[in-house]
Amino acid sequence: MPSVSSLDDLIEALRCLPGVGPKSAQRMAYHLLQRDPRGAERLSAALDHALKVLRRCARCNTFTEDDVCERCQSPKRDPALLCVVEMPVDLNTMEQTHAYNGLYYVLMGRLSPLDGVGPKALGFDRLLARATDGVVKEVVLATNFTNEGEATAHYISEMLHARGLRISRIARGLPVGGEIEYSDAATVAQALIERRDY
Amino acid sequence: MPSVSSLDDLIEALRCLPGVGPKSAQRMAYHLLQRDPRGAERLSAALDHALKVLRRCARCNTFTEDDVCERCQSPKRDPALLCVVEMPVDLNTMEQTHAYNGLYYVLMGRLSPLDGVGPKALGFDRLLARATDGVVKEVVLATNFTNEGEATAHYISEMLHARGLRISRIARGLPVGGEIEYSDAATVAQALIERRDY
Repeated sequence: MPSVSSLDDLIEALRCLPGVGPKSAQRMAYHLLQRDPRGAERLSAALDHALKVLRRCARCNTFTEDDVCERCQSPKRDPALLCVVEMPVDLNTMEQTHAYNGLYYVLMGRLSPLDGVGPKALGFDRLLARATDGVVKEVVLATNFTNEGEATAHYISEMLHARGLRISRIARGLPVGGEIEYSDAATVAQALIERRDY
Repeated sequence: MPSVSSLDDLIEALRCLPGVGPKSAQRMAYHLLQRDPRGAERLSAALDHALKVLRRCARCNTFTEDDVCERCQSPKRDPALLCVVEMPVDLNTMEQTHAYNGLYYVLMGRLSPLDGVGPKALGFDRLLARATDGVVKEVVLATNFTNEGEATAHYISEMLHARGLRISRIARGLPVGGEIEYSDAATVAQALIERRDY
């Protein structure tokens, strides 16, 4: 079968996207070339531009175009509260709640020994320096309730407890609107254990 | 929520990929920026390059870097046979069978009135010119057995029958290794109708 190298290169390059296998990459390449060459142009330019201008916020570690991101510079935020999340998407979800007015630290990952991601790779020294700046009073751990997220939260709490900071963890329990009948046993058990006075 | 425009632009641009919604686009953008900036660079370059050098083969309509693709130029192919497929992926699958030695015509789509894709948009005049070059004797219709693929095959056969060409359609029936018990009734019915002498 004669192959067209620039097409093969494109298909291969698309496979760097998470969750995209050979079949999807092929479908994407044909779609871009045939139906949406302008979208492809725009994607190429957006990738180029993002790689050039985006860097990490010196305070919260999220992506920004400045040295310190807009949120970390805001005087409306409570600097005594520091919420630790795994990824920028988690930060976005937290913000959508309008229930939190402190600052953030984005780990950009989670402890995952099987993938070789340890405390060093996650830059826990930077988090330590950030949390012990003298202004932060409470660190809210908002990593996911997966095994890896839990291990990450545990590690951070061990690291920071000795520094005299208040460490908290967001609550587990039934979701809003949740029905006991349709909740899994582990969640209901946790909701029982973490019950609060009413 | 302060937004970072180059990041938002990238997320928006990724949505031009088929099957990629806002959540996936976000995940892809963070993945590329954080875990695979070199992959992102490569993708941007591959898109750019493909858009620049790829065009349509003047004979079979597939993607190529030349005026006429390698396959259409091959003297080892039987020029009396022309197989019509919907997409280049279909052509690749046909080639993998090693059961066909003729040439191809790639529609780059299928009739789909609901999406506004009619005979004109699919360039049926070019297919007509290709099939009536005087060398082609048989046109093998290998569009999909979906409603749209069937309608496309029907339209093409109507268009070409009058020109004195033999028109054939690839067979329907049970897949190789298929068991009647687990096949759907429509497929078994078709396998009965299209039974052949043994």
